[in-house]
Amino acid sequence: MLMSDPFVVVGGDAAGLSAASKCLRTDPDRDVIVFEKGSWVSYAHCGTPYFVKGEIEHLTDLLSLSPEEAADRGIDLRRGHEVVAVDTDARTVTVAHDGETTEQPYGDLLVATGARAVSEPIEGSTLDGVFTLHGLDHAADIRSYLTPPEAFDVADLGGGDALDEATAARYGGMDPPGTVAIVGAGYVGVEMAEAFAAWDLDVHLFQRSDRPVPGFGDAVGDAVTDHLRESAVALHLGEEVRRLDGAGGRVDRVVCAGGTELRVDAVLVGIGIRPNTGFLADTPVAIGESGAVATDEHGRTSLEDVYAAGDVAEMPHTVTGDPTWNPLGLPANRAGRAIGSTVGGDPEPVGRVSGTAMVKVFDLECGRTGLLDHDRARGAGFDPVSETITAGSRSGYYPGAAETTVTLTADRDSGRLLGGSIVGTDRAAVRIDTVATALGGEMTVAELERQDLGYAPPFSPVWDPVLVAAKVLNGSLE
Amino acid sequence: MLMSDPFVVVGGDAAGLSAASKCLRTDPDRDVIVFEKGSWVSYAHCGTPYFVKGEIEHLTDLLSLSPEEAADRGIDLRRGHEVVAVDTDARTVTVAHDGETTEQPYGDLLVATGARAVSEPIEGSTLDGVFTLHGLDHAADIRSYLTPPEAFDVADLGGGDALDEATAARYGGMDPPGTVAIVGAGYVGVEMAEAFAAWDLDVHLFQRSDRPVPGFGDAVGDAVTDHLRESAVALHLGEEVRRLDGAGGRVDRVVCAGGTELRVDAVLVGIGIRPNTGFLADTPVAIGESGAVATDEHGRTSLEDVYAAGDVAEMPHTVTGDPTWNPLGLPANRAGRAIGSTVGGDPEPVGRVSGTAMVKVFDLECGRTGLLDHDRARGAGFDPVSETITAGSRSGYYPGAAETTVTLTADRDSGRLLGGSIVGTDRAAVRIDTVATALGGEMTVAELERQDLGYAPPFSPVWDPVLVAAKVLNGSLE
Repeated sequence: MLMSDPFVVVGGDAAGLSAASKCLRTDPDRDVIVFEKGSWVSYAHCGTPYFVKGEIEHLTDLLSLSPEEAADRGIDLRRGHEVVAVDTDARTVTVAHDGETTEQPYGDLLVATGARAVSEPIEGSTLDGVFTLHGLDHAADIRSYLTPPEAFDVADLGGGDALDEATAARYGGMDPPGTVAIVGAGYVGVEMAEAFAAWDLDVHLFQRSDRPVPGFGDAVGDAVTDHLRESAVALHLGEEVRRLDGAGGRVDRVVCAGGTELRVDAVLVGIGIRPNTGFLADTPVAIGESGAVATDEHGRTSLEDVYAAGDVAEMPHTVTGDPTWNPLGLPANRAGRAIGSTVGGDPEPVGRVSGTAMVKVFDLECGRTGLLDHDRARGAGFDPVSETITAGSRSGYYPGAAETTVTLTADRDSGRLLGGSIVGTDRAAVRIDTVATALGGEMTVAELERQDLGYAPPFSPVWDPVLVAAKVLNGSLE
Repeated sequence: MLMSDPFVVVGGDAAGLSAASKCLRTDPDRDVIVFEKGSWVSYAHCGTPYFVKGEIEHLTDLLSLSPEEAADRGIDLRRGHEVVAVDTDARTVTVAHDGETTEQPYGDLLVATGARAVSEPIEGSTLDGVFTLHGLDHAADIRSYLTPPEAFDVADLGGGDALDEATAARYGGMDPPGTVAIVGAGYVGVEMAEAFAAWDLDVHLFQRSDRPVPGFGDAVGDAVTDHLRESAVALHLGEEVRRLDGAGGRVDRVVCAGGTELRVDAVLVGIGIRPNTGFLADTPVAIGESGAVATDEHGRTSLEDVYAAGDVAEMPHTVTGDPTWNPLGLPANRAGRAIGSTVGGDPEPVGRVSGTAMVKVFDLECGRTGLLDHDRARGAGFDPVSETITAGSRSGYYPGAAETTVTLTADRDSGRLLGGSIVGTDRAAVRIDTVATALGGEMTVAELERQDLGYAPPFSPVWDPVLVAAKVLNGSLE
């Protein structure tokens, strides 16, 4: 039986190594091989803006599992090994390493190849001084560029043996930028605005739509707009960056579709990511509408012995049940862990995703979960109604109470909660977990309004802002 | 029909005024009379320790609704009016005011008389320098005593016309205390330890059991023990205060059952409260086992036209459904509001209570919800299993991550979540709302483990401490 063939994992990041670790805890006798095409494994994507900012000193601080620890867990981790093809009939993967290719049989296969940052359709993105932020090498390059040459030492990056030192050193030798353009005001864009501002750069943030962090809804977008401007970020809304120009191979200008031009020394492109599914092109593994790999409730693809998890895979949505591409950290870890358990012989569902997310924008805390966008809610068969309220984060008389804005969306007929967002400066982001849990419990807004949440003047008013929003929305549903 | 008789509310605090306001919003033509025996209405009990501490300047800062605002809402608010008896056959209340009594007919009656602090069975509690903390007059007296006579001005208390100035002024003229004993380490005890410490007193905290904040479970109790000691509070655990002694009518000594004695200048007794049900003694209104008024899901008592809400009433427990006395701010407001709606013609359930609570102990944030105590869980027919974990409040590499300890309790057979607690210094308390919402959704621990919570390095690690606890507890249930 092929079950004796190894559990082969393609990709050594959150989903892949979670699966490998959990499989070995569940079935210590299983052979588990992880192929990682790069040199980094198990690193915290979400920490990279703070490494660039300088709040986190070393690249290695961002690793949650070292290659040595992976080996201690019994994982056969092979870095610098790229899986270039899969033969799902023969149950083998083709692995490229040091210019050679070999065939590796698998009993079970996990596709955990993640996603990559894209810069298309912007022209000129290969110029020096133009970056995306996806991975530790990118982060190292950007911080190196920000550091004055006389202060630069590649060892200060703390990259260990995994860092591509040549590119970092080349940027370390250049004059640091004075003006930076960030293209795209999603998570990466707003976090990098904070990081660049900490280096005293003139920061220009370009966003095609009329608000930053569009996935967080209008109320959060408005608050973030104000806060970015108060934080001296030049915000260019409704501006689509078309082209990056440069002389001598180095970027020096941003050109927008409407004709706006800006002189710059650096550009950070944060307009999106795409799942890395290319190596599956010749297989029958089904790809979903989103472009990510379709999976079932156990993370199985259209093939019985092939799983997918993390930024490369779809997962079912909490509210709609529909396949959803939601490339975020927790679902990747959770799905990886569940698949490891399933492959190890103890079947576990991967769970659902609500798109719950938090982001810090300078001093502002933002959160979102579920369906906020009315068009999308209508597409899923709901009749969405939203209300936005602003309430205090603490009792009004207690020092430090801050305005907290909550939006909740519900279905008019059933009263079912569909989603929510929150923004504020005092403990705002973690409050989204209340809404996320109410979504997971398939609550109506009336039920959410009656949840017995905590109250203490230093932490929350009698009616938590989430409850105030539920009260108002419930009133408008009646 | 008697429905045209007024809606009479006994007690002008959270539950009573919420009910009165909501009734008038629902049915603007209804007559609504609120009798309040004291001079204060609608004040924030939970803010009084911070008024004593000095973080909140004026007593009036703690009022959420002034008598004038109540009048603007159409409420006939009568302060200094004590309801001393109810005739449920005649549907009248007997009201004492300025030495006279009158009869007031009611169509619907709400009992919202709250609770009172007790000092029994401790002897000597009428000595000068011995306080309970229940109400603004108590808070004023304590802060007056703490203030040196040369700095004291009764106007600084900001009490307006409602303050009992004579008692405050008498305390303001006394030499301030140097050593204070707090009897009872519940909410009031630990919050007042912080308040007294801010005035540089030597603070001694006595607790009969072996841990402070016993309602929060052992793990929180242990963390609070350490933190109080680090905060220079002398903690006397397992010591039962029996007697307070004094010379010249002023307290100067605390005497414990085991013989321990302590010289003190002030004593704060915070050993509990009791519901104010005395005026119902000659009525058929049913009192529950807890000593509070029994109610149904709409806050009705055993009589059709008599309701009860707030600290005087029981409510059904989220997990067990059993009548529970849970004298806290949010349920009082929520039940009052629901009853106001019901009386106004739009029936609304009061909801359930989980005993969700938060408390600040110096820099420590504590939260609890549901059934934590194993004996109580067994009494409700469950087979409780608990796990306690400690995890970071943020990604480990991000500055400011703090140890956060979570306990979760579940039923072994069904896996149903029964309760939880949390303690830590970084955004710990509000995370209890996630557990409270999961309780409200009647989730199993496995379901909680798969909730799609938020993640961002500055606010939460990939696996929120609540999820880590669910993961570990779920593992031990398998």
